[in-house]
Amino acid sequence: MVTTPHIESETPGPLEGVRVLDLTSMISGPVATMMLADQGAEVIKVEPPEGELVRHMGRNVGGLTSVFLSANRSKRSIGLDLKNPAAVDVLKRLIPTADVFVQNFRPGAIDRMGLGESVVRNLNASVIYVSISGFGETGPYAHKRVYDPVIQALSGLADIQMDAASGRPQMIRTIIPDKTTSVTAAQAITAALFHRERTGEGQHVKLAMLDTMVAYLWPEGMARYTFADRPPEPMKGEASPDLIYLTQDGYITAGAISDKEWQGMCRALDRPQWIDDERFRTANARIVHGKLRREMTAEVLLTRTSAEWLERLDHEEVPSAPVLGRHEVIDHPQIHANEMIVEDVHPVAGPIRQARPAARFDRTPARIRGPAPELGADTMVLLGELGCSAAEIEELVASGAVVAKE
Amino acid sequence: MVTTPHIESETPGPLEGVRVLDLTSMISGPVATMMLADQGAEVIKVEPPEGELVRHMGRNVGGLTSVFLSANRSKRSIGLDLKNPAAVDVLKRLIPTADVFVQNFRPGAIDRMGLGESVVRNLNASVIYVSISGFGETGPYAHKRVYDPVIQALSGLADIQMDAASGRPQMIRTIIPDKTTSVTAAQAITAALFHRERTGEGQHVKLAMLDTMVAYLWPEGMARYTFADRPPEPMKGEASPDLIYLTQDGYITAGAISDKEWQGMCRALDRPQWIDDERFRTANARIVHGKLRREMTAEVLLTRTSAEWLERLDHEEVPSAPVLGRHEVIDHPQIHANEMIVEDVHPVAGPIRQARPAARFDRTPARIRGPAPELGADTMVLLGELGCSAAEIEELVASGAVVAKE
Repeated sequence: MVTTPHIESETPGPLEGVRVLDLTSMISGPVATMMLADQGAEVIKVEPPEGELVRHMGRNVGGLTSVFLSANRSKRSIGLDLKNPAAVDVLKRLIPTADVFVQNFRPGAIDRMGLGESVVRNLNASVIYVSISGFGETGPYAHKRVYDPVIQALSGLADIQMDAASGRPQMIRTIIPDKTTSVTAAQAITAALFHRERTGEGQHVKLAMLDTMVAYLWPEGMARYTFADRPPEPMKGEASPDLIYLTQDGYITAGAISDKEWQGMCRALDRPQWIDDERFRTANARIVHGKLRREMTAEVLLTRTSAEWLERLDHEEVPSAPVLGRHEVIDHPQIHANEMIVEDVHPVAGPIRQARPAARFDRTPARIRGPAPELGADTMVLLGELGCSAAEIEELVASGAVVAKE
Repeated sequence: MVTTPHIESETPGPLEGVRVLDLTSMISGPVATMMLADQGAEVIKVEPPEGELVRHMGRNVGGLTSVFLSANRSKRSIGLDLKNPAAVDVLKRLIPTADVFVQNFRPGAIDRMGLGESVVRNLNASVIYVSISGFGETGPYAHKRVYDPVIQALSGLADIQMDAASGRPQMIRTIIPDKTTSVTAAQAITAALFHRERTGEGQHVKLAMLDTMVAYLWPEGMARYTFADRPPEPMKGEASPDLIYLTQDGYITAGAISDKEWQGMCRALDRPQWIDDERFRTANARIVHGKLRREMTAEVLLTRTSAEWLERLDHEEVPSAPVLGRHEVIDHPQIHANEMIVEDVHPVAGPIRQARPAARFDRTPARIRGPAPELGADTMVLLGELGCSAAEIEELVASGAVVAKE
């Protein structure tokens, strides 16, 4: 484990000098802007007086929940009551200083708040205005509330996970649509920044969670529907067992696609006679007899420990791994080698673990640039930067238009 | 459905003018570069003489498989036998023309091919050199072969999907690690392009599938392990049933988090007495009694059709949706409204469906710029651009160093 990597290096990240005004809440927006913040963008999180929703969901230490800590690090925070015109005025004074303006309210809401694209663009002609939605701006679902499972249901993801025996669709137990939207939004914002850097032109970038998932699942999840010369027919759940095998003392995964890998697997399993078995001799035959092959494999793997099998499989260069519990991920030797988990002491929440940004830039490292902020931690500094007088600030705080950490 | 959107508009994408030399195969690399290609980058897919692996996996029409079509559209293709020094020489003449060089061979392999970073950078000082790996460059797994399920096992994803009753971890039936790596790589490459545009500096960007998944799962999948003041303990599978409910005629999802949503749900379900039930009156109480609440909800939902329930739930503004089969996704009214599925006629494979790029840029639209190429479709043109003489080209083709489509 690595401690406080953000003080190890002061090299700027690839997005150094970019300022993002972030009005998003929950996951899809905040994780997107966190990626940008880790890459050096200055992200100003604009929060309502009560703090955004995720500050209130789950166990918290000093008012900071684990999800908030992991979706909002490296950011600054300003508390603004956008129902109060004085707070809207503060935001409008911040807008000309920003490169990117991001919001994920339901379609139409931001216009009713008086912060639609035309208003923002009048204040900052070249801003990149980003709207993240659940379903898109028009259509029968556009007005609806969204949670991650709704997108799992509509996008076909729950259908893909269908239980073969019962035919019941199943949810994935982690919020794939939310987080895939985050990464996709971060990419789109970055592409718009690149275009603006070349041409000076800002634009409106729109991204729907539903669209994100359809595009994301398409290449293989929808492979059956790629050829359009026949009507789309329903697919059953995967009849074949998945690649998780029980050993004497735990679970492992192992899979062989090429002939070479399959031959290695037969040797590792002490079943050399399977190599010349007609049912498994070619890649195609192994697909045709996949269910049988996996059942036969499972029977053999029950007879030794995970460590024994993994050593044998690795020796034969068969792709394989233990199925780790989440608690084991943190201390796995490969995770250590990658310095993937970072321990740090949050000034309020105490010792915390974070996963570092995944992509490594050798000249402009992405890194955790600071802890997730307390609500309004940067309000005073930001108002000062805008040239607000002490009397003005006092009035803003007293009226409740802004919230500042003491 | 929308037909041939790539001829509707000739507006440049946000990455117009960027040239990518793409040596990747399978999914993680190709889907990443396809995102860049849809956004206007010129992606040159460098393929071995037999074509990359995905050309040979699954049903094909005219030599084009569905996965290949959906992971390689908008690209050009050159066939190069990189075991042949004459082909390596061709690639080295292409390198100075590129902005980005991407490869996803196992660590060390690209150096043995004579195309490691220092070689490439000698030919093009400011190139962005991208290495996508399974596990990272060092550590006990670095040398191993990787498939998507191996990363699902090691990253905790299979643990998250654990079956609560049996305690057996489960795989997700779609290649989440591969595709999340694609989107993450596309974002990192775009950030490196932005930095280079500002400073002229290229760099080496490295991304491991394992790191991608740990970072991606972290915010809520690993929430329990964020606070580092206690040793990591194993987590059981989710005890609570998931949010999929059987109705009289199918499956729907519905969920209420806020008080307002819960009250709406009670009304939609004709169970107004649940509103004042102490077990469900606060958000926290509803979490504590989550299992019971879902079981009671399931019992009620069995009594009417999906359409009836969805209308009632929507009327009360409760987030809800039908659980669509993949074949239904294609024709769902919201997918139509979003113009998400594009039908086109591939010159070789015939009529095909694609999902358009998810993010919408109003000034520089991302769009499908052309069909997935046949192997070596652009070899002749690219050799011509490099100034190769007719005799030289003939020799390259005759020796098998390059493969060109007739």
